Amino acid sequence: MATENITTSLPTRPAKQSNTHPLAPISADEIKNAVSIIKSQWPADTDLHFKALTLHEPAKAEAVPYIEAEFHGGELPRIERRVFVTYYLRQTDKFHEAVVNLTNQSIEYNVRLGPNVHAPLDGEEIMEFERIAIEDPKVQTELEKLQLPEGSRVVCDPWIYGSDGIDDDKRMLQAFLYMRDPQNAGEADSNHYALPLSVSPVISTETKEVIRIDYLPTGKDSNRSGPQPWQPKPSNEYLPEYQELRKDLKPLNVMQPEGASFSITEQGTSNIVNWQKWQFRLGFNQREGMVLYDVRYEGRNLFYRMALSDMNIPYADPRQPFLRKSAFDLGDAGAGIMANDLKLGCDCLGSIHYLSATLADDKGNPLDMPNVVCIHEQDSGIGWKHTNFRTGRAAVVRNRELVLQSIITVANYEYILAFTFNQAGEVSYEVRATGILSTQPIDEGVEVPWGTVVHPGVLATHHQHIFSLRVDPSIDGHSNRLVYDEALPMPRSDFNPHGTGYYVQETVVEKSGGYDLNPDANRTFKIQNAGVPNPINGKPVAYKIHAPPFQKMLADKESFNYKRAEFADRNVYAVKYRDGELYAGGQYTNQSRGGTGVRSWAERGEGIVDEDLVVFVQFGINHIPRIEDFPVMPCEIVKVAMKPVNFFDRNPAIDVPPSTQEFNKSTLLSERHQQGGVEGKVDGNGDVCCTTTSSKL
Amino acid sequence: MATENITTSLPTRPAKQSNTHPLAPISADEIKNAVSIIKSQWPADTDLHFKALTLHEPAKAEAVPYIEAEFHGGELPRIERRVFVTYYLRQTDKFHEAVVNLTNQSIEYNVRLGPNVHAPLDGEEIMEFERIAIEDPKVQTELEKLQLPEGSRVVCDPWIYGSDGIDDDKRMLQAFLYMRDPQNAGEADSNHYALPLSVSPVISTETKEVIRIDYLPTGKDSNRSGPQPWQPKPSNEYLPEYQELRKDLKPLNVMQPEGASFSITEQGTSNIVNWQKWQFRLGFNQREGMVLYDVRYEGRNLFYRMALSDMNIPYADPRQPFLRKSAFDLGDAGAGIMANDLKLGCDCLGSIHYLSATLADDKGNPLDMPNVVCIHEQDSGIGWKHTNFRTGRAAVVRNRELVLQSIITVANYEYILAFTFNQAGEVSYEVRATGILSTQPIDEGVEVPWGTVVHPGVLATHHQHIFSLRVDPSIDGHSNRLVYDEALPMPRSDFNPHGTGYYVQETVVEKSGGYDLNPDANRTFKIQNAGVPNPINGKPVAYKIHAPPFQKMLADKESFNYKRAEFADRNVYAVKYRDGELYAGGQYTNQSRGGTGVRSWAERGEGIVDEDLVVFVQFGINHIPRIEDFPVMPCEIVKVAMKPVNFFDRNPAIDVPPSTQEFNKSTLLSERHQQGGVEGKVDGNGDVCCTTTSSKL
Repeated sequence: MATENITTSLPTRPAKQSNTHPLAPISADEIKNAVSIIKSQWPADTDLHFKALTLHEPAKAEAVPYIEAEFHGGELPRIERRVFVTYYLRQTDKFHEAVVNLTNQSIEYNVRLGPNVHAPLDGEEIMEFERIAIEDPKVQTELEKLQLPEGSRVVCDPWIYGSDGIDDDKRMLQAFLYMRDPQNAGEADSNHYALPLSVSPVISTETKEVIRIDYLPTGKDSNRSGPQPWQPKPSNEYLPEYQELRKDLKPLNVMQPEGASFSITEQGTSNIVNWQKWQFRLGFNQREGMVLYDVRYEGRNLFYRMALSDMNIPYADPRQPFLRKSAFDLGDAGAGIMANDLKLGCDCLGSIHYLSATLADDKGNPLDMPNVVCIHEQDSGIGWKHTNFRTGRAAVVRNRELVLQSIITVANYEYILAFTFNQAGEVSYEVRATGILSTQPIDEGVEVPWGTVVHPGVLATHHQHIFSLRVDPSIDGHSNRLVYDEALPMPRSDFNPHGTGYYVQETVVEKSGGYDLNPDANRTFKIQNAGVPNPINGKPVAYKIHAPPFQKMLADKESFNYKRAEFADRNVYAVKYRDGELYAGGQYTNQSRGGTGVRSWAERGEGIVDEDLVVFVQFGINHIPRIEDFPVMPCEIVKVAMKPVNFFDRNPAIDVPPSTQEFNKSTLLSERHQQGGVEGKVDGNGDVCCTTTSSKL
Repeated sequence: MATENITTSLPTRPAKQSNTHPLAPISADEIKNAVSIIKSQWPADTDLHFKALTLHEPAKAEAVPYIEAEFHGGELPRIERRVFVTYYLRQTDKFHEAVVNLTNQSIEYNVRLGPNVHAPLDGEEIMEFERIAIEDPKVQTELEKLQLPEGSRVVCDPWIYGSDGIDDDKRMLQAFLYMRDPQNAGEADSNHYALPLSVSPVISTETKEVIRIDYLPTGKDSNRSGPQPWQPKPSNEYLPEYQELRKDLKPLNVMQPEGASFSITEQGTSNIVNWQKWQFRLGFNQREGMVLYDVRYEGRNLFYRMALSDMNIPYADPRQPFLRKSAFDLGDAGAGIMANDLKLGCDCLGSIHYLSATLADDKGNPLDMPNVVCIHEQDSGIGWKHTNFRTGRAAVVRNRELVLQSIITVANYEYILAFTFNQAGEVSYEVRATGILSTQPIDEGVEVPWGTVVHPGVLATHHQHIFSLRVDPSIDGHSNRLVYDEALPMPRSDFNPHGTGYYVQETVVEKSGGYDLNPDANRTFKIQNAGVPNPINGKPVAYKIHAPPFQKMLADKESFNYKRAEFADRNVYAVKYRDGELYAGGQYTNQSRGGTGVRSWAERGEGIVDEDLVVFVQFGINHIPRIEDFPVMPCEIVKVAMKPVNFFDRNPAIDVPPSTQEFNKSTLLSERHQQGGVEGKVDGNGDVCCTTTSSKL
């Protein structure tokens, strides 16, 4: 593997055309190249509206020999470079999918996609449709009925239309309308979610016209009274200048005076990350955001690929248009293209390395995405400790973690997405949901059982957040199996005379399918390599999945919501690996019908014992809004972790250096009291701790 | 309330005899006073073996008016000061319980306790029995049969005997024997758990004699071959000097250059903590360790008292003596008396304030316990964020937390116990299990379904860790109710035509009892004050309980284990408040029979709607050991949280100042690469972030 150890924080650096890693995201030049090849298929003045321009990953059968040769220093096989492209003929419904072979400068296929297959939204059209929705004369007429105060500014959140099987074959948007605080309408960041309006235009994305105007129900039932004269409501701003800010928070800084412990080796558009025996390649693309490839620990294979596969947020209000609110924030938008530009010192604390990416805009031009990933270490408390009570000698190490974080904004909501590695061989994926509830108007004095009034006139409907993490394991190799352990009580017997005994039983998952947790049996899924026994106890090396139980998709099995979010009904899906099966909700989620995602793949019922299998781990939150979630919600955190089981020969963190004051430089808060706080001083001559000399008795 | 704002890190400061807060732990002088009063009840030369010397908390009916007067500045009622004492006549089974009234200098009662009521272990007797077990001639004879190498040093972990109803009325200890690495027997901290022996003496604590020697079963069945010549086994040391330590970990320091944001007001033996609108009194006692009293947010009542109530660790091996292994680490030992002396820079990182405590030893002398609690702030990532995609303006704050941490060592295991507060009104309790597995010998080549071989010849039996947090709420007052919400699908109907609707249904818990979570219904327990409606949406103010599901006690309902660990079969117990009902497993857990804990109180079936109720929240881990847990296990983390629901009128953290580079001083890792790391430089002229000027459009 190329070991040129260059670290950079500059977002623009020319891609290395030679030696382009087959799993590296496509570069700016490759974007332009693919676009020109696609354009060459059409008359010169055809306006193509690009949607996806992303690496078409090589077949695993090619990629694995490459990365093994790369790791072990062999000759690298040649792998052709391909780009996956989707596009419209602009302002038509002619949606195309193509694969361009850049190595051969050819098109492998370029087909028009069938009905009910629609592209995700993109940023440019969202802005455009916001304007169209508000400026449309029919909409203006309706808005006038609201008799809004002079100078009011109406704002629009364009939403995916969703699916209900009722004249929904064409690509449309449902525009939810709000307004800024009318008393401060010049404030461009006024929290419009506090002032929802009951008029909701529907836009055809093909014709870019408002084709219908829906009235939102604002009571307990299906009645829609249409726009009524607007009653003054208070605002609810979140910007700091509208708050009486706390004055007593002292700074807390994280310093790494000798630098960070990780190294980043830039190789074109991807990066190799090395930290505390972990090594992996980090990519970033339009749809998934961060992708981890070829994750190894001390050189041992662990994961071929790991990335968020999709998420689904279905809403609980059964009435139109809300029954169609079911967002797939990756498939309908994209965790890469929606990623925030992370600001030093605001989003990430400590010694930070930023990674930027190159994506594409709707015209097929490369689009710089600066600082979409921040990488840093953090201290996460004690890693392990033991004190021999007889001698008082303590051995303690701290738990240092490596964090790779990205934040996406999908209209009202934010998701903070982070891969975290620690020194005990554990890798986790954490999602923090924050941002603003998607709100709708409600009449005064009305309560409904499917939502919470979070502000006068504002209803936040209950909704689920269901995430799916795709884990393509290679635990000491690619022939793996999925098993689950359960802890079961032993029946009373002569051998178990007091009814205290219990045992663990392992069940092999034979076929692809969806599987659930069972906390009452402590059911724990593990991915094993049955061919590699642990050197101490002979058990197959494995990694277990720590995923919290969650309430699965509540929508019933006949619903579009259920059929479309194919991952949302099980804690785990396991399938036999097939190239191209990356997205648990299917390739095209916008106004989809289902049938193209992980549930469908699993129904093939293929054997997955000692095979190349892929596991989708679901986790989530049933968000029942509360007042405290408004105007912006405090982060709600949900996390899955992969932990070694009999993979190592002892605690992999046993060799972490002891936690010492010399290294950590904590400060003892002193006796002197100052206004509003306590002054710290470093206690250089403090208690000797964690002595490294052993005691002899 | 006294507002003398003195901060101190000195462990010894004279107790203020006047103005002693009724909830403050007893002072050294009070210990001596109580002891002398008890001793005066006995002939002068009677050797009393003290077990508990702790505050006998005043009746809540007295304490509440006191703390309300204290808070609001009224006249403080007089409350008598009492000490709870238990003691033996040394080396007898005459175990006594007494309450001493220090105000009156009298004894309120002093009774001998009945059969099957035994005291916890204490540190002095543990050390003594270790010696007795090893030096006993009968034991020496057995050990000789092992033919241990010359110079071997045998070590003993004395364990609570447990209960099986078989001649177990007397107080005994089960001594598990191990040895140091015979090739390095001078190493006092050799990991003896790697070398377990099959001879296990039983000691009468009354006579201080070995009364029986058990042979441990070492195969798959109940056979006990007795001590066989010892076969050489490798060692498995955890001390750093026996490891090849990692060399590439760079320091990470946490600095608070302007000091910390919390203030600690010392009032005798307790401390008032103020931080970010939180205020509470912190106590510390022998059994519970940290106790939080009178927890308020912006002056509003939240919790009258919060503390770990007990924990139970039952083991899965059904054979003698292991079927009796069921440790109650608070009731059998004590989270206060077992607390580590926390070392600056080793256990706690950042700007640290330490609190010390005064407990008592077995002779009734005050015992200084330095640095048993560390208090510090920490950064826990982003608190909330929203970016208006139209303007790009981000509002973001970080999540600052206050941590109060204590670590207990109970022979082989450690538990890191921490209360954490954040700026969004949330308080959580986290337990990290670490330390060393309790091991037993196993023959080579044997596997058993109730444990894992973690080292040649070493079996670590499966076991559960079940914790119980006692929460005595006072949500905006003492008349509270427990309810639970469930999210349920709406049936299909004209109103729910597409099967997508769902609603939340609230159920009031009418009577005391044990209740379970149900993740499939998203069942969420809340403690409400039905008499205080939220000003925005009228819903009763509440705090919800976030507790992870766990596998309840596996031992069957007729077992001693089940009968004794009365909390271990339910996620939540709710009871009507009664003075003195603090410990979910009962007052006396050592070799107990059950019937005196929370399950028994709950069986009273009292109404708890709009009453003074107490909630016990259980959470835990079924620990199925893996190789990676040896020689010391990486922390396994489990956590419960209490979060506001419609308690506030908006996000309580909305007024946290924005996260800015100026405040946070993150470092941008630069281009220059240094050997083994990357150098950091502070980017003073970096990107402007999180501008405070609003944009106007």
